[in-house]
Amino acid sequence: MSEGSPRTILAQGRHLRLVSEAGWEYVERNAASGVAVIVAVTPEGRLLLVEQFRRPVGRRVIELPAGLAGDLPNPADEALAVAAGRELVEETGYAADRMSPLTAGPPSAGLSTEVVTFLRADGLRRVGPGGGEPGEDITVHEVALDTVVDWLRGREATGVLVDPKVYAGLYFLERRA
Amino acid sequence: MSEGSPRTILAQGRHLRLVSEAGWEYVERNAASGVAVIVAVTPEGRLLLVEQFRRPVGRRVIELPAGLAGDLPNPADEALAVAAGRELVEETGYAADRMSPLTAGPPSAGLSTEVVTFLRADGLRRVGPGGGEPGEDITVHEVALDTVVDWLRGREATGVLVDPKVYAGLYFLERRA
Repeated sequence: MSEGSPRTILAQGRHLRLVSEAGWEYVERNAASGVAVIVAVTPEGRLLLVEQFRRPVGRRVIELPAGLAGDLPNPADEALAVAAGRELVEETGYAADRMSPLTAGPPSAGLSTEVVTFLRADGLRRVGPGGGEPGEDITVHEVALDTVVDWLRGREATGVLVDPKVYAGLYFLERRA
Repeated sequence: MSEGSPRTILAQGRHLRLVSEAGWEYVERNAASGVAVIVAVTPEGRLLLVEQFRRPVGRRVIELPAGLAGDLPNPADEALAVAAGRELVEETGYAADRMSPLTAGPPSAGLSTEVVTFLRADGLRRVGPGGGEPGEDITVHEVALDTVVDWLRGREATGVLVDPKVYAGLYFLERRA
């Protein structure tokens, strides 16, 4: 698995660095390699989604609520669930009683070290306005589960993109149902 | 949406470049920004999955068959379906009669320009050995749909990672079923 060839940092930015190693090139975050992604359904059966402008793709993108974790995720890591709970409140205004790991994996293993852990949030209650930190300009959507795919198609028709992780989250919700 | 601040290339590698723009940093491929991801089920009801070592995460990763497209994906783009068909044969040894778009979106919109298009492959027939190009060392798995989640858990227990896009693909299969 290890070819022993040197790892070279081609560029070191403020947030990301570009690495060359063993014939591969990939990007990694300076401070965090883990991301917590939260599958949260309100007591009324509505999935929480966030929408924000993403410069890399030049469009608004609908995603599951998510936040950076400090280190490589471990599904059993209490700190990851705590970070996920904090991000959920910041982005959506909902607090969760419980966070349960669903799966963890790399969404772009060919070009990034990123590994995302999906967590199911249960026992939701509204505690704040959401919308993210100042300047994040996050729109929160609460969408009835039985209409969510049609709703996503409608948003796409307006030029908004949908992160495929939303559909992975829906898969886990349907398996549980 | 546009802040007009300059786009600066922090590093230009052989495959990727790291860009700084309007306070964001992100990575993009030099030659392609689109990826075709293929949801393919054999006539016997088995999902095609590929497993290969991915240096960015330092592990073997199980993914849906996929290939780079030359340009930003357009689900109506015949060239994308053609590229997807070629990659499916190279990686898995199966040819498809038809490719139908399922969804398209950015899996890591916070750090990459990458947009993936999911295509459903129908009418599969074996035409070759698969395994990718020389040096790619791709293992092909054909997994019965009704056991695939347990199978993935078992592989994870051995240290292999699973790309969350696999679960997005399963969601579309279940919706159709």
